Amino acid sequence: MANDQPPRPSRRGFLKAGSAAVAAGASLGASAAAQAALGKTSAHSADPQMAVEPFYGLHQGGIVTPQQSHTYVAALDLTTEKRDDVIALLRAWTDAAARMTQGSTAAPLPTGAAAKAELADTRIETQVGTKADARTDNTAYSQANTQAAPDSGDVLGLGPCGLTITFGFGPGLFTKDGKDRYGLASRRPAALVDLPRFNGDQLIAEKTGGDLYIQACANDQQVAFHAVRQLSRLANGVATMRWGQAGFVSGPRGQTPRNLMGFKDGTNNPSTAKPQLMNEFVWARATADAPWMEGGTYTVVRRIRITLEHWDNTEVGFQEQVFGRHKYSGAPIGKKNEFDAVDLKEEDKDGNPVIPENSHVRLSNQASNNGAQILRRSYSYNDGTNFYIERWPPWRQETEYDAGLIFVAHQSDPRTGFIPINDKLAKFDMMNQFTTHVGSAVFAVPPGARPGSYIGAGLFET
Amino acid sequence: MANDQPPRPSRRGFLKAGSAAVAAGASLGASAAAQAALGKTSAHSADPQMAVEPFYGLHQGGIVTPQQSHTYVAALDLTTEKRDDVIALLRAWTDAAARMTQGSTAAPLPTGAAAKAELADTRIETQVGTKADARTDNTAYSQANTQAAPDSGDVLGLGPCGLTITFGFGPGLFTKDGKDRYGLASRRPAALVDLPRFNGDQLIAEKTGGDLYIQACANDQQVAFHAVRQLSRLANGVATMRWGQAGFVSGPRGQTPRNLMGFKDGTNNPSTAKPQLMNEFVWARATADAPWMEGGTYTVVRRIRITLEHWDNTEVGFQEQVFGRHKYSGAPIGKKNEFDAVDLKEEDKDGNPVIPENSHVRLSNQASNNGAQILRRSYSYNDGTNFYIERWPPWRQETEYDAGLIFVAHQSDPRTGFIPINDKLAKFDMMNQFTTHVGSAVFAVPPGARPGSYIGAGLFET
Repeated sequence: MANDQPPRPSRRGFLKAGSAAVAAGASLGASAAAQAALGKTSAHSADPQMAVEPFYGLHQGGIVTPQQSHTYVAALDLTTEKRDDVIALLRAWTDAAARMTQGSTAAPLPTGAAAKAELADTRIETQVGTKADARTDNTAYSQANTQAAPDSGDVLGLGPCGLTITFGFGPGLFTKDGKDRYGLASRRPAALVDLPRFNGDQLIAEKTGGDLYIQACANDQQVAFHAVRQLSRLANGVATMRWGQAGFVSGPRGQTPRNLMGFKDGTNNPSTAKPQLMNEFVWARATADAPWMEGGTYTVVRRIRITLEHWDNTEVGFQEQVFGRHKYSGAPIGKKNEFDAVDLKEEDKDGNPVIPENSHVRLSNQASNNGAQILRRSYSYNDGTNFYIERWPPWRQETEYDAGLIFVAHQSDPRTGFIPINDKLAKFDMMNQFTTHVGSAVFAVPPGARPGSYIGAGLFET
Repeated sequence: MANDQPPRPSRRGFLKAGSAAVAAGASLGASAAAQAALGKTSAHSADPQMAVEPFYGLHQGGIVTPQQSHTYVAALDLTTEKRDDVIALLRAWTDAAARMTQGSTAAPLPTGAAAKAELADTRIETQVGTKADARTDNTAYSQANTQAAPDSGDVLGLGPCGLTITFGFGPGLFTKDGKDRYGLASRRPAALVDLPRFNGDQLIAEKTGGDLYIQACANDQQVAFHAVRQLSRLANGVATMRWGQAGFVSGPRGQTPRNLMGFKDGTNNPSTAKPQLMNEFVWARATADAPWMEGGTYTVVRRIRITLEHWDNTEVGFQEQVFGRHKYSGAPIGKKNEFDAVDLKEEDKDGNPVIPENSHVRLSNQASNNGAQILRRSYSYNDGTNFYIERWPPWRQETEYDAGLIFVAHQSDPRTGFIPINDKLAKFDMMNQFTTHVGSAVFAVPPGARPGSYIGAGLFET
């Protein structure tokens, strides 16, 4: 029987030839630098399954990378007391992430010989299991998990799908319950603040915080989830899952996508094509307290539930006043085209502002926030339904969509970015009638790694 | 300002020309028959956004339709006491579903003139709202929801995406709490049985049952969700949401997709290309008790949570014994190719069955079930994480993935299909160590509608 064991494919093994990405082959035999270069050239492949993004580099991927269609974001809590465990985890994560972004499995699959032995051994064990009701016989399980599969294998054949994996560090890596577990307390950047409680926050502990952050983005949702799943497993015994969340964005290709409220989302983002804007608003600078963060960023994640049932019962004109934009064109109110400038000073014939005082666009605009900007890279989420108690009219209790926005924003410093902007929004935004922030986290996202090194090396080794 | 209001696009209005689907235009001015024909020719468009499936026809779509990449399934409970309300809802659903599957909005968007008036009115109302903290002023909301938008607009520009919408009737439509609310009790098909409790069932009430079923499948998850969202809103005052669930399937195009356990799923399905198999196993026949079900089917939905963390810690060889198939090739154990026949009689040199006694493939195989077959059309689901108590070793409590399978199976009669098959699986399948059924529902899915009629007309009007 062992002779019938088929060859083990790479994640790209099933793909037809015809794309440069295939040339890189199943393993990471080619140098990472070469693969990164490959990623750059094929990232805009017509087939989103074949897109490849570089892993190594000055910055981590998934920050200014053109937004992929899906994400899975997760936070883990460290359970180890040992600094070396944390470093070993980051090394393992770096290696696995580099492999997966280039279209490989998280670790090499076993060779044919190893596989045969493995299969034969297991075969004997599971014959025990078949003699009784599987529900009452745990022998098979406890015997079988001695040498786990190196990869769950569920995305074999799907291609790299433009996968990026971004790692971040929460406040708990530096101090937890007042304890400096890993000798890092003095290296915590001042910019990695604990977020204040904002007006209206309804945060749920199990969707908030976390010591370590993984953000996987890909043009396929199973590929994004697969990445987090393999990385989370590598953390066994060192860290446990705190929360995980799938997200997606659907949009006509090349156009600003619409969120679940039906409005274009991201129109006024600073352009990732302008390095000077990224340097000013997104990339962290080397500060005296955190020189290791140069080229990194600070990432805020908010799980924002939207009462879509109520939103859908409002008039389009009202919705436009809430946003400050026209729904169908995406233009600022009073303008014709999506990318027309937002003119906050414009008044109608009665002297009232054309873009309402408490509209989302006005309150979040750079001009209303001392010039501050953040790079939003949000995804919609859709977790089915559950029972919900409305804080707003018509004050009903019912089964509602657990859907909304996984707000993700990157910035050079949350103290001048997300915090003051959201402070204003939380107090005055008309949209708050339809949104509830139920999850929240902030992370220091270090710069990218060099081949041979690992994500966060600057924090631990300088 | 009203003069700046941009024109209102159809869901396909933003799409570039170049596909036959665009020729049908924004409205449903073309006859439904012509559009259905159009759907047939363009369903296999190279661009999955442009695929169109017919809505009207002998059978409803979404049953033998080649599986789209995403779904949103939902069940609603009827709250009305009036039979006419139910008929009116089914008529409204039929019309909206026909429009949406062909790439239009659920209802026509307002004309320019109507929009101007609407915008002007709302403008006055919301100025009141801006004078105070939006959180404490509900005037705007309660005034604004007098004339809701005809469509949420969140999929404008995305194309039809191969959308199918399938409606079904749960037991509660016929009798609820012993009450014959709509005079339909005598017309309940015997095949629409209440499912028995299966071994190991851990059903959650708010993910189980339902009077009405909506299954939206599309090549985009926002398009699938959008459809349910519009239909659910049309039910305001007549029915309320009981549960909703998003699902997806990721696969190399043209190959059997892998589920989250990493195995190919659906290999042994009866071929939808063989009408005689569909007539035998999928389509309901006209019975004396339910002549109106001819050309319909019976659909079972099960939400099956999978403890992926534990599965990922087992050896590949063990996983293959659980499934009865090789993981990478999908071949039955002992065979080389995915579509090689499953030989349940084969034994190894020691006389043990090559495909284990309690493997999933053996227990679910036609030969083990008196020739019964069901058409599985399942999707994976991924609802983030939550706190979970394991029923199996290592008996831990922790935050785990709320992910698994939305099992969907169509069949001519569940009494000879899902029920006996699952009875056996629930008792003996080794896979039960990793799966928990937490939601369940069964529906009578009536045949398709003729243009001008509505889904379920045969039940109410013959």
